Amino acid sequence: MKKNSSLTAVVIGASGYAGSELCRLVARHPLLTLAGCFVSEGSVDAGTKLSVLYPKLRGVVDLPLQGLDSLSLKQIKATAQVVFIATEHEAAAQLAYQLYDNKRIIIDLSGAHRLAEAQDYVTHYGFSHPHPQLLSEAVYGLAEWHTGLLANANLIAVPGCYPTATLLALKPVQHLLASQPVIVNAVSGVTGAGRKPTHKTLGAELSLQGYGVFNHRHQPEIEQHGQTAVVFTPHLGAFKRGILATLYLQLAEGTSCQDVAEAYAVYQKHPCVRVGYQHTPAIQDVEHSGYCDIGWHRKGTQLIVFAAIDNLLKGAASQALQCLNLRFGEPQTTGVPL
Amino acid sequence: MKKNSSLTAVVIGASGYAGSELCRLVARHPLLTLAGCFVSEGSVDAGTKLSVLYPKLRGVVDLPLQGLDSLSLKQIKATAQVVFIATEHEAAAQLAYQLYDNKRIIIDLSGAHRLAEAQDYVTHYGFSHPHPQLLSEAVYGLAEWHTGLLANANLIAVPGCYPTATLLALKPVQHLLASQPVIVNAVSGVTGAGRKPTHKTLGAELSLQGYGVFNHRHQPEIEQHGQTAVVFTPHLGAFKRGILATLYLQLAEGTSCQDVAEAYAVYQKHPCVRVGYQHTPAIQDVEHSGYCDIGWHRKGTQLIVFAAIDNLLKGAASQALQCLNLRFGEPQTTGVPL
Amino acid sequence: MKKNSSLTAVVIGASGYAGSELCRLVARHPLLTLAGCFVSEGSVDAGTKLSVLYPKLRGVVDLPLQGLDSLSLKQIKATAQVVFIATEHEAAAQLAYQLYDNKRIIIDLSGAHRLAEAQDYVTHYGFSHPHPQLLSEAVYGLAEWHTGLLANANLIAVPGCYPTATLLALKPVQHLLASQPVIVNAVSGVTGAGRKPTHKTLGAELSLQGYGVFNHRHQPEIEQHGQTAVVFTPHLGAFKRGILATLYLQLAEGTSCQDVAEAYAVYQKHPCVRVGYQHTPAIQDVEHSGYCDIGWHRKGTQLIVFAAIDNLLKGAASQALQCLNLRFGEPQTTGVPL
Amino acid sequence: MKKNSSLTAVVIGASGYAGSELCRLVARHPLLTLAGCFVSEGSVDAGTKLSVLYPKLRGVVDLPLQGLDSLSLKQIKATAQVVFIATEHEAAAQLAYQLYDNKRIIIDLSGAHRLAEAQDYVTHYGFSHPHPQLLSEAVYGLAEWHTGLLANANLIAVPGCYPTATLLALKPVQHLLASQPVIVNAVSGVTGAGRKPTHKTLGAELSLQGYGVFNHRHQPEIEQHGQTAVVFTPHLGAFKRGILATLYLQLAEGTSCQDVAEAYAVYQKHPCVRVGYQHTPAIQDVEHSGYCDIGWHRKGTQLIVFAAIDNLLKGAASQALQCLNLRFGEPQTTGVPL
Repeated sequence: MKKNSSLTAVVIGASGYAGSELCRLVARHPLLTLAGCFVSEGSVDAGTKLSVLYPKLRGVVDLPLQGLDSLSLKQIKATAQVVFIATEHEAAAQLAYQLYDNKRIIIDLSGAHRLAEAQDYVTHYGFSHPHPQLLSEAVYGLAEWHTGLLANANLIAVPGCYPTATLLALKPVQHLLASQPVIVNAVSGVTGAGRKPTHKTLGAELSLQGYGVFNHRHQPEIEQHGQTAVVFTPHLGAFKRGILATLYLQLAEGTSCQDVAEAYAVYQKHPCVRVGYQHTPAIQDVEHSGYCDIGWHRKGTQLIVFAAIDNLLKGAASQALQCLNLRFGEPQTTGVPL
Repeated sequence: MKKNSSLTAVVIGASGYAGSELCRLVARHPLLTLAGCFVSEGSVDAGTKLSVLYPKLRGVVDLPLQGLDSLSLKQIKATAQVVFIATEHEAAAQLAYQLYDNKRIIIDLSGAHRLAEAQDYVTHYGFSHPHPQLLSEAVYGLAEWHTGLLANANLIAVPGCYPTATLLALKPVQHLLASQPVIVNAVSGVTGAGRKPTHKTLGAELSLQGYGVFNHRHQPEIEQHGQTAVVFTPHLGAFKRGILATLYLQLAEGTSCQDVAEAYAVYQKHPCVRVGYQHTPAIQDVEHSGYCDIGWHRKGTQLIVFAAIDNLLKGAASQALQCLNLRFGEPQTTGVPL
Repeated sequence: MKKNSSLTAVVIGASGYAGSELCRLVARHPLLTLAGCFVSEGSVDAGTKLSVLYPKLRGVVDLPLQGLDSLSLKQIKATAQVVFIATEHEAAAQLAYQLYDNKRIIIDLSGAHRLAEAQDYVTHYGFSHPHPQLLSEAVYGLAEWHTGLLANANLIAVPGCYPTATLLALKPVQHLLASQPVIVNAVSGVTGAGRKPTHKTLGAELSLQGYGVFNHRHQPEIEQHGQTAVVFTPHLGAFKRGILATLYLQLAEGTSCQDVAEAYAVYQKHPCVRVGYQHTPAIQDVEHSGYCDIGWHRKGTQLIVFAAIDNLLKGAASQALQCLNLRFGEPQTTGVPL
Repeated sequence: MKKNSSLTAVVIGASGYAGSELCRLVARHPLLTLAGCFVSEGSVDAGTKLSVLYPKLRGVVDLPLQGLDSLSLKQIKATAQVVFIATEHEAAAQLAYQLYDNKRIIIDLSGAHRLAEAQDYVTHYGFSHPHPQLLSEAVYGLAEWHTGLLANANLIAVPGCYPTATLLALKPVQHLLASQPVIVNAVSGVTGAGRKPTHKTLGAELSLQGYGVFNHRHQPEIEQHGQTAVVFTPHLGAFKRGILATLYLQLAEGTSCQDVAEAYAVYQKHPCVRVGYQHTPAIQDVEHSGYCDIGWHRKGTQLIVFAAIDNLLKGAASQALQCLNLRFGEPQTTGVPL
């Protein structure tokens, strides 16, 4: 596969919020041809056009949703050079295994390949990982931090939405911190909870409310890839898209503003991250875009960092494209809405 | 039952949005004692406290939700002087029949007793009415208009939310109109769609969108009780509570502003309706209250009337209490949040 | 100016909601180079970077807002081939006059050149039009309907947001109608009210509420360009972007669904308009896009048509680009977010 | 003044969001007669009925807003037994001084009497306190904690909205903490920012965004009355009413769940505070009510506590009534919407 040739891509799990955004972005990515949109076998959505589920995609993605069966899987193997997986975690673990060989790139947006240890899946995801050997093959797709590894990855685990916002804020200053744990207070829009109807995600119930206290599965992901203990508390807000993470950090004595500014300067060569001293990013600044906006504030040894992303884009679909771009030597931003 | 003695009341269908509001209002109504909150037999909510489903009711209504079975139905018959029904329509038709005798007042918030003809239920509700003989017994509980009938009613059909807003705007000026149909453009908050999780009512899907064009079941209800042809078009808005109905009416030649003002003066003796000439009521003016706010505007023979209500209160629970008050000779507003 | 050469463009009135969207779209339009962002002389925003007012534009449009004075006006005359005006109406009338000659294209997003008669400005806009001779020069930029005229226009009056939605829904079926007036019930997001802080547009006040009853200035615009009497009633909704217009139309006896379908087929060659029979477009389907979604419903001689647009895009900035594209022989959709 | 006699009350600063809520509650408080609603002299709102500014108050509070001048001040002195002040801080300091004697109770909802040291006003409020001698007279009206002092107070400083939520969560467990500072992450609805139109509080700008980092004036208030160092970070959310505060606390080694539960049991005798172990209170649970809902979660020595209030009620107007009730020996909840 050489640069700028068109790559045949499919999306599995296309009917979800992240999956449908992915289809939209893949369809207009100059390097990719969207060859198929799949849902799990037996899904009620099989046979329906994606644009019937998402009328905003009429004229944008007019493919039908195909139920994934052995035949279509075989066809994917025969033709797809890039497979995006946006299904439930356990299904994703199975699919990645079935599709993994040296003929295609697998970009998994589920959590199935984000944690290093099989045991973590029992503890945090509630299932025994069926193919733990792939965990060490997967490259964690935090695009700005794993640029080199991604250039050669065949299995990419796109980070969760909360970890993306948190780690982008945390990693530059990690060496400046005096103590753990880091406090991460985060608020997400309701698309983060997925498209399956539940009481909690009804429009009539939306409000601002914490959840998953001490036990959200993004906590171990943040800790592993951030190499820091964190107290991570997600909240569900009464809005559709976006995450705002507020991090409370303790700097080592003597750390100057200059030190912090230099640390965040790492993002000067990464166009999807915008940083500002004493900036307070708003979710509406990044909604519908692939940006992560970071603002930091220091007083003595206290450091407060805000990070805002669109959970479905930088927290899922557009970060997946950044990973793909890095894999194929494209500029990070190709096809990313900025 | 004499005035101001405490009446034993139960609510059946207490787990829904209207039902839970009703429980809250009944619990603090000076004339009533809330003796039980019921859900249908086999409901997953049976056994749960209402305040677990609705944490805002902690300390307000601490009763458990009881599954309705033959035993509890017998007990309701033995003790309840007032039964509020807020279940699905067909269940309500059955319940009203089982509970209807001269020992208690039944106040039905479902649609089961709002239409005059049994055939209407086949056409508009999709079921064959099991007890059509009760349709002629029921008094339509549009409180401001059926004050006299309600004083003697034993079965009260509380109007639907859209019909309440529409009819309160329409009825005073009906004799001034030159032509039909009346255009009614209405927008409702999502609680109007009920508590059952569906794709359409997810927080992630809320927007502004028409639905039920030409075939919403509130159209025949409006036409029957308004004695006018209407083109009624409901819309679902991205908010929780409230309805704004905008009516487009054609006045007879020569109708003056004075004529219209006099027509709406009918509400001067009805404290739950507030009228203003050239007023544009906002949903937030009536949210969480039992008011209906009406504003009217005339230009030549064009008359535009806005009516705003809280769909769960004036459009359901508080109007039910107005009916109860009228039945027992209380002031209309007793227990109504104003 | 030949096709695909880069055209130097400036935006005057860049600090408003429509103006800033315009800057964003102009900056990435392949035919245009955004050479300047202007605000009125003495504006408090002069000297500030546009991306400080709109942090979402950091890295996207990094130009400063320049106060417009005689010097900068001279410079615009010397260099700009395309001038977008997004100021207040009266200022726009003055600016268009000062800049109008055969060396540049003026695309005016204000209302200053939408109405044919100077007298209309006294009546509906509250000022005496300073340069009425330009009113007959201006081409009304309803892109899908004035394709031919726009190809030669030097002064383009971009339609208002409400008229855009209304006229796109109305014009195809106008010849099928039996009577007037047409009822247009429309709801807009709060960005339509502009960026100037007022009580009515505070976040704390947003709700759903009618306004401008019988006297909104978009009514004569709709009537003039739709050649039909309308009763147009705008409402302000509790959301940021988008308009949903619901039109109530009376078809001539004998009009079939086929007739209506054929009428709307006019949009098959216009990619920014998507039409569906029995479709109910939602604002979220067109938010942040340049689409207009139309859904139509017929019952007997009643025709109900919904039209949804993003008020800042199809209702302002992206329609301005469609006009520009048509003027320069580009495909309509170049640079339009779809 | 003996219990249950009617007390003459006035509200100064009645046109604001907290002031208008206060008028509504005072008007229906059984102990009070609302004798006047005042705004500052020269306010554009003077002469207007409060219910014109707030149409939801039509029929509820029909008094006009009176401009406060020397004459009306004299009249207030002659007649009012209770004066509520809901003006800007500096004006409140002046008013309290002018009205303070042993003939009436002053309940100040501004920040003018919340801090102990005059110097604090220079630092945190930007003005030199004109009457510092009153600072030591004022009783801080955190109703659940100063029950005794409030019984004899003549000048009551009602706590700020953020301090109310924070201190109610913090104070019970303060003796169990191992270290400082306490992290307080709080999100408020936009009514907290007041009724004066600003860009930040426009409906078109609302999103989720931090502000006042390290320098919000509620930080010293929390620290003083909580006797603890805090890192307090407020955020503005895209909703109208309510505050959710999330507190991150470090327990001393060996602290058990039992210890924490016993600490929070202090609220069992305070009906306006509802506490739940492992509860995650939502803002919608307390919206439009005088409740504070607290949920606490412990893991090892980590303690996370959520507190939700309605910022205009428990965070302002209804807490003012609780203070009044305690002052006059009434039950705390009289007139408080629960």
